Amino acid sequence: RKRILITGGAGFVGSHLVDRLMADGHEVTVVDNFFTGRKRNVEHWIGHQNFEMINHDVVNPLMIEVDQIYHLACPASPPHYMYNPIKTIKTSSIGTLNMLGLARRVKARLLLASTSEVYGDPEEHPQNEEYWGHVNPIGPRACYDEGKRVAETMCYAYAKQENVEVRVARIFNTFGPRMHMNDGRVVSNFIIQSLKGEPITVYGSGKQSRSFQYVSDLVAGLIALMNSDISSPVNLGNPEEHTIMEFAQIIKDKIGADNEIINVDAAQDDPQRRKPDITKAKTLLHWEPVVPLSDGLGKTIDYFREEVKLLQ
Amino acid sequence: RKRILITGGAGFVGSHLVDRLMADGHEVTVVDNFFTGRKRNVEHWIGHQNFEMINHDVVNPLMIEVDQIYHLACPASPPHYMYNPIKTIKTSSIGTLNMLGLARRVKARLLLASTSEVYGDPEEHPQNEEYWGHVNPIGPRACYDEGKRVAETMCYAYAKQENVEVRVARIFNTFGPRMHMNDGRVVSNFIIQSLKGEPITVYGSGKQSRSFQYVSDLVAGLIALMNSDISSPVNLGNPEEHTIMEFAQIIKDKIGADNEIINVDAAQDDPQRRKPDITKAKTLLHWEPVVPLSDGLGKTIDYFREEVKLLQ
Ligand SMILES: NC(=O)c1ccc[n+]([C@@H]2O[C@H](COP(=O)([O-])OP(=O)(O)OC[C@H]3O[C@@H](n4cnc5c(N)ncnc54)[C@H](O)[C@@H]3O)[C@@H](O)[C@H]2O)c1
Ligand SMILES: NC(=O)c1ccc[n+]([C@@H]2O[C@H](COP(=O)([O-])OP(=O)(O)OC[C@H]3O[C@@H](n4cnc5c(N)ncnc54)[C@H](O)[C@@H]3O)[C@@H](O)[C@H]2O)c1
Ligand SMILES: O=c1ccn([C@@H]2O[C@H](COP(=O)(O)OP(=O)(O)O)[C@@H](O)[C@H]2O)c(=O)[nH]1
Ligand SMILES: O=c1ccn([C@@H]2O[C@H](COP(=O)(O)OP(=O)(O)O)[C@@H](O)[C@H]2O)c(=O)[nH]1
Ligand SMILES: O=c1ccn([C@@H]2O[C@H](COP(=O)(O)OP(=O)(O)O)[C@@H](O)[C@H]2O)c(=O)[nH]1
Ligand SMILES: O=c1ccn([C@@H]2O[C@H](COP(=O)(O)OP(=O)(O)O)[C@@H](O)[C@H]2O)c(=O)[nH]1
Repeated sequence: RKRILITGGAGFVGSHLVDRLMADGHEVTVVDNFFTGRKRNVEHWIGHQNFEMINHDVVNPLMIEVDQIYHLACPASPPHYMYNPIKTIKTSSIGTLNMLGLARRVKARLLLASTSEVYGDPEEHPQNEEYWGHVNPIGPRACYDEGKRVAETMCYAYAKQENVEVRVARIFNTFGPRMHMNDGRVVSNFIIQSLKGEPITVYGSGKQSRSFQYVSDLVAGLIALMNSDISSPVNLGNPEEHTIMEFAQIIKDKIGADNEIINVDAAQDDPQRRKPDITKAKTLLHWEPVVPLSDGLGKTIDYFREEVKLLQ
Repeated sequence: RKRILITGGAGFVGSHLVDRLMADGHEVTVVDNFFTGRKRNVEHWIGHQNFEMINHDVVNPLMIEVDQIYHLACPASPPHYMYNPIKTIKTSSIGTLNMLGLARRVKARLLLASTSEVYGDPEEHPQNEEYWGHVNPIGPRACYDEGKRVAETMCYAYAKQENVEVRVARIFNTFGPRMHMNDGRVVSNFIIQSLKGEPITVYGSGKQSRSFQYVSDLVAGLIALMNSDISSPVNLGNPEEHTIMEFAQIIKDKIGADNEIINVDAAQDDPQRRKPDITKAKTLLHWEPVVPLSDGLGKTIDYFREEVKLLQ
């Protein structure tokens, strides 16, 4: 039984991680500023003796006593992180420094929720952990991509110089219930559009690809990584790759909708291909995704069906 | 006549910039924590009515009133920036945020001293400003490279969101008098070794290349860029490229030394080639380097000859 801090714990991924760690009997503290997270995502734990929720911005120092830190606080969807680029970059840089300072002081282990975006618009395919990436340092996505890259750099600086135990998860596209209605990422957009009978908006040609993992697989991977002795970065993602156009069709079919698929303007610097090489996670963590895309989509569609109803 | 702040103004490049701006009649304030800089470099201005020296670390907020900020504060030589990676990354990230906050408040224009290291170990040659770079986010140089990349990202976030006027100089290898004796960079090392009759230490094969500019050329470029209307990044460097082995020979010959050249261990992640494409600076700033390598080396050797004598 451990004292575990989850920054960003009221968000999509964080709240599922809370559920798993609470179910495992740990003491869980969530720190969140509710920028994209919602109390609703963790409200079922409020009042539980092992659970605490702190309304706090990680850009400010935090003094608590914990054994492990899952550092997830950061807006994750392009419209959210581009909404206030200065805030995004402060969250990743100062926020991560603060959490590393905390980890150092209390000798906690810190896991950084990094991202496949550190590989940028990759020139190697699939991406393994040795790849240095192809990122535009001054493009519209830079506040997020470079923020996460420098957060990784900071982790290894504290690891080397201050013996902080760090874990770095490079998370690939993840979906599931509790994604924000206005999240703006592809899965939620396409599902909501299909449920509402609105046109599915494919940005650009739709030939760009992504690989989508269901959130419960990610949560299992994060916990396995945290409790492993692998301090170097590890990809966590589902290697099943689809083009965005295929994905639009899959979602439409699954919902049985008859809305049209339209092509709108391409997003600037949109990565053209993305697929994790998960050899490292398989070999060293004995982890791999187990939820089939169709099952994950089913659960996510059920969730959004309720959300859309609530709105109406 | 302007009120000009130079962070890192007691360092190698900064002190030459001070000289030029003081000679032009500006009010110059230097902010430096003397990590690698020295009072000696600017002592000839101390007491002058237009000059002020503040002993301050840019990692802490700074409240002053100025029109222009040349933001140079950051250790620049590999041994110096690797000495305390956490401090290096804090200086580039928090330090740059503070100077951007200052620029925003007082509506000053900020020029960031960025670096060719944002291109990393480049896969394009020569490097122009469109190239996204090839940088290891978790390697030994990352505290510097990723620090500068994120500093650029921050500049453009403040430019876009807060209308801060930014200028970004991507500076290529520069040399000249006032380089620190223990700087550890190649020019000072080879000159000092030749003057002392010690072996010249070539790291690795010596086939890796660099392009060296003399400091007065750089200073002219920085001032031209600051006062231009080019807000996108601009390379400042001398496109004359030499291998490190050639360079060892050139310096040895220039000094007329008969010390030997030895190959020692290669540095990790050492960029293999580096040469600026300066089309942009030529076209838009009408700037290009004018000091021949041999003249620049002559002045630098004279300087180190005195320094070595002082030590003896
Ligand atoms: N979901 C994915 O596909 C994906 C992919 C790669 C990486 N990630 C990473 O996983 C983490 C969680 O992503 P998510 O999809 O759950 O996103 P999310 O937006 O749902 O969750 C982020 C949470 O962090 C909180 N937050 C943001 N800034 C904060 C600050 N300054 N202080 C305190 N809290 C703050 C938000 O309120 C929110 O609760 C992020 O770090 C993200 O970069 C996610
Ligand atoms: N000289 C080059 O070849 C070269 C190449 C590319 C970029 N640059 C950039 O130009 C700038 C100047 O480089 P330089 O060669 O003069 O190096 P330098 O080490 O001589 O000068 C850096 C100065 O910054 C000061 N400083 C460092 N950390 C500070 C902090 N936290 N607060 C306040 N002051 C601090 C140092 O004391 C020093 O005076 C640096 O930003 C460097 O990254 C230099
Ligand atoms: O329990 C702690 C300890 C440190 N910090 C912050 O973490 C950052 C980095 O800490 P570090 O130990 O590197 O030290 P400092 O910068 O304070 O010297 C600083 O901004 C601290 O305020 C924190 O938020 N909680
Ligand atoms: O309504 C949408 C939202 C996204 N996308 C595309 O879907 C892919 C994944 O985008 P998302 O924002 O989900 O995540 P990313 O992987 O780009 O961070 C990208 O190629 C987007 O251009 C799309 O075609 N339509
Ligand atoms: O004159 C100033 C104004 C701001 N800052 C610092 O610059 C950073 C970024 O400032 P910003 O305006 O973005 O605001 P803040 O983070 O204070 O909201 C902050 O840490 C401020 O303390 C500074 O050093 N000098
Ligand atoms: O004593 C030395 C110092 C540097 N170098 C090499 O010279 C080049 C330039 O190194 P420096 O540290 O001056 O600057 P960098 O461009 O790598 O930041 C690199 O390939 C170094 O490995 C060398 O061979 N001997």
